[in-house]
Amino acid sequence: MTFDFEPLAPASFLERAGRVYADRLAVIDGDARFTYRQLLERAQRLAGGLAALGVGPGDRVAVLAPNTHVLLEAHFGVPFAGAVLVALNIRLAANELSYIIDHSGARVLIYDRELEALAREVAARAGADVKLVCAGSAGGPNEYELLLGGADPLQRPVSDERGMLAINYTSGTTGKPKGVMYHHRGAYLQALAMALHTRLDSDSRYLWTLPMFHCNGWCFPWAVTAAGAVHVCLRRVDATAIWNHLRRGGITHLCGAPTVVTMLAWHEEANQGRLSRPVRIATGGAPPTPTLLARMGELGLDMMHLYGLTETFGPAVICDWRSEWSELPMAEQARLKARQGVANVIAQAVRVIDDTGADVPADGMALGEIALRGNNLMLGYYRDEEATRGACPDGWFRSGDVGVMHPDGYIELKDRTKDVIISGGENIASVEVEQALATHPAVLESAVVAAPDEKWGEVPVAFVTLKENVSAGAAELVAHVSGVLARYKVPKRIVFGALPRTATGKIQKFILRERAKDS
Amino acid sequence: MTFDFEPLAPASFLERAGRVYADRLAVIDGDARFTYRQLLERAQRLAGGLAALGVGPGDRVAVLAPNTHVLLEAHFGVPFAGAVLVALNIRLAANELSYIIDHSGARVLIYDRELEALAREVAARAGADVKLVCAGSAGGPNEYELLLGGADPLQRPVSDERGMLAINYTSGTTGKPKGVMYHHRGAYLQALAMALHTRLDSDSRYLWTLPMFHCNGWCFPWAVTAAGAVHVCLRRVDATAIWNHLRRGGITHLCGAPTVVTMLAWHEEANQGRLSRPVRIATGGAPPTPTLLARMGELGLDMMHLYGLTETFGPAVICDWRSEWSELPMAEQARLKARQGVANVIAQAVRVIDDTGADVPADGMALGEIALRGNNLMLGYYRDEEATRGACPDGWFRSGDVGVMHPDGYIELKDRTKDVIISGGENIASVEVEQALATHPAVLESAVVAAPDEKWGEVPVAFVTLKENVSAGAAELVAHVSGVLARYKVPKRIVFGALPRTATGKIQKFILRERAKDS
Repeated sequence: MTFDFEPLAPASFLERAGRVYADRLAVIDGDARFTYRQLLERAQRLAGGLAALGVGPGDRVAVLAPNTHVLLEAHFGVPFAGAVLVALNIRLAANELSYIIDHSGARVLIYDRELEALAREVAARAGADVKLVCAGSAGGPNEYELLLGGADPLQRPVSDERGMLAINYTSGTTGKPKGVMYHHRGAYLQALAMALHTRLDSDSRYLWTLPMFHCNGWCFPWAVTAAGAVHVCLRRVDATAIWNHLRRGGITHLCGAPTVVTMLAWHEEANQGRLSRPVRIATGGAPPTPTLLARMGELGLDMMHLYGLTETFGPAVICDWRSEWSELPMAEQARLKARQGVANVIAQAVRVIDDTGADVPADGMALGEIALRGNNLMLGYYRDEEATRGACPDGWFRSGDVGVMHPDGYIELKDRTKDVIISGGENIASVEVEQALATHPAVLESAVVAAPDEKWGEVPVAFVTLKENVSAGAAELVAHVSGVLARYKVPKRIVFGALPRTATGKIQKFILRERAKDS
Repeated sequence: MTFDFEPLAPASFLERAGRVYADRLAVIDGDARFTYRQLLERAQRLAGGLAALGVGPGDRVAVLAPNTHVLLEAHFGVPFAGAVLVALNIRLAANELSYIIDHSGARVLIYDRELEALAREVAARAGADVKLVCAGSAGGPNEYELLLGGADPLQRPVSDERGMLAINYTSGTTGKPKGVMYHHRGAYLQALAMALHTRLDSDSRYLWTLPMFHCNGWCFPWAVTAAGAVHVCLRRVDATAIWNHLRRGGITHLCGAPTVVTMLAWHEEANQGRLSRPVRIATGGAPPTPTLLARMGELGLDMMHLYGLTETFGPAVICDWRSEWSELPMAEQARLKARQGVANVIAQAVRVIDDTGADVPADGMALGEIALRGNNLMLGYYRDEEATRGACPDGWFRSGDVGVMHPDGYIELKDRTKDVIISGGENIASVEVEQALATHPAVLESAVVAAPDEKWGEVPVAFVTLKENVSAGAAELVAHVSGVLARYKVPKRIVFGALPRTATGKIQKFILRERAKDS
């Protein structure tokens, strides 16, 4: 005889927090405040309400909401109902969303009143009947609160820790979105890893700048709850509001794409100087430039650089910082921190491999594809065996990102596979050119893509956004880059203006490639 | 198709540390220093060496050593060989140890040269041939180093995360020791929980005051390694040496029984005042007295109170501290911190239950038995189905400890089941009387047990150790306790002198009960 073991399931962190941190603040959302006892009860009532709507184990429940307490509650209430959470990207169009509703087979859609018109259109376009539940009270009844108020608390046990917890649809830059299936075990372990690496504890306050619909907010709904910290909800990413939270709201942690961090770094509020207490900012999605890293240090913002994909529950890789590195010159620190890093504490060692699946030399030079594996790897793509097989031909998940392995075991991304520019037979990592541009004081951000060229095959073209109240011409920027990079890497053309982005803030290079053809 | 998952196994933390923290210091042991790269290689060579000795998957390997790098390496090298670690309590007698060797079926015994005579006697008494491997070089060849030097690195994969990792023999106060079987999954999760709760990171230095043979050092061999912190080995618990490490060795963390902490608190080195940097001390095994907690606060030692048993991989329960409690008067803080607390982040909620298995009221008054369950529960007792069944009649492990559940969900131990004194039909928790004695300024520590009494059935008798250079008579202590406790709880007799202890520092009340009969 042996004792039973308990399935690893991240919603169980709320069960613990509801007891241990019962009377402590769990959520701040505008004027609303909930303790952990209340958050647990609300999640259990949400589960009961969903069951009353006919949601059974394994059924999918979609939520269309900004970073509100409703979406946070769904991260616990939906699994408590034994169901699968589909957190929808609120910046998608109705036809994209109805595709996801149809593909996931969700029959319940909880939405924020702000998004009422979009939700109704999505439901109207969907192939099957979708039960709509509106959260918000402006004018009409708050259906979501009525659902909770009329429900009995419910918490269905998790029978299989490798069972489905959520489906996160990739906000791919091209093609139909794919449904990445998360399992309980992976989210549980990833949440512990995030809490440990970012040093969350019961005195932390986490600001919800990263969308919860993006890789389930990198598993922070569960990590923050495991730590008993406070969730500070935020409906939209607004630099003034964020600076207000940082300076006066006691925030200790936030996550965000580099574009969000860039916006904060050069916002006028930043000019009021260094924060009185350090704030830890975890950023991933694209390598932050050395210039940005240096700026954040001046502001008292402690940047952690992370890397991962939807398929790996967010950050599988962290730039694990050595305290001795803090003694190095700032430029050297920035160079080290621009690297994506090493596997997090619960992940399997990350690899950089060639076309045959063999490791490239760990010399910081040889380019290869980043490959990942471990407990924080998805179950696969929902209803898409072929794509699943393609992503993982030999057990190792192919990220589509190109990078190098440094001699100390840290990886550094050089580009997306498809963003590499091949000019005269030489590979040019677009990121390298972007980093060179970022060292010019007038450049806020840039994106470099390939344009077709009769002589060279492809040439680099740069799209650049300048900081406010400064100016620089194309010739000046070209001269600047020529000073630091080989001639074939220097942009052949420079185009000024705002950069097109995905809903999660990623720059849409496929649009820029189209523009580059015509520029 | 779904992706494979990786078994949870704590030795894998060294695989990661060996890459990520390769050139950072892993171990300080006297004059010896090893980096994480070296520690990984040594563990892999130990595995290879064991395999060369014929150790196969599932075989048991015993180690008899104080807290040295050898015993630390065994926590990785033995599982790398696919084998099961039996870390022996070095304070046991030869016949007790040979019983454990025979019961576990270990055929290899690695020992520290300091313990050569004991190891040889154990091997001579054992029922089967035991291969001895001596670690240490005083005079003769260092067999352990020769074994490592001649071996190829080996790391056998873990196929079943619920497979056996270690057997820890309980240092029970009576009867034959029972072999508590640890599984990989439990130790992995418990290590993460310990790292998270004690806030270990790659700048931490952990001092090995807690024996590694005791619940595998509560899983800190793996927790400290997961964090990339430094292991500072310590052959024996010596207050002067420990204070030296605290004041000059950069120590940030240590664990120890309250008796160890008590020794530190009133040692003359403590009089040199508060530490310049805070040190986190985790203590469990018996509730620290309010007096001790107050003293530690003055010294800059941040006490964490934990609770668990060998059967629960050590601390399944932690007194999770609220920062708002730090604003309370010291006496109130001490009262809160003397409670054992709540389930740790990976454990299932702890219960206090009556004889029928039902929860007692959460009123801080009703006594019941502490019951535990979750991933950090043993597989069972090795080769003892009956004892396993008895310990866990309904899936909940019965701790044998008596306590109460407070309204806020924190448990507080009142006594061992068998240490409760029943006087005139009233239950007296011996701990309560001991805490009352501890508030007298002359008392260093005490143990209260039942003595048979014709009139009352049992009466409490106190065994007391006074601090150095102070004096107090029995009448004075009786008067002191009478001022704070009900009359029937006041010791009927007081006996002065040192207290008998088990090898892990627990007071042996069964000896005192014998003495109390005659006193």
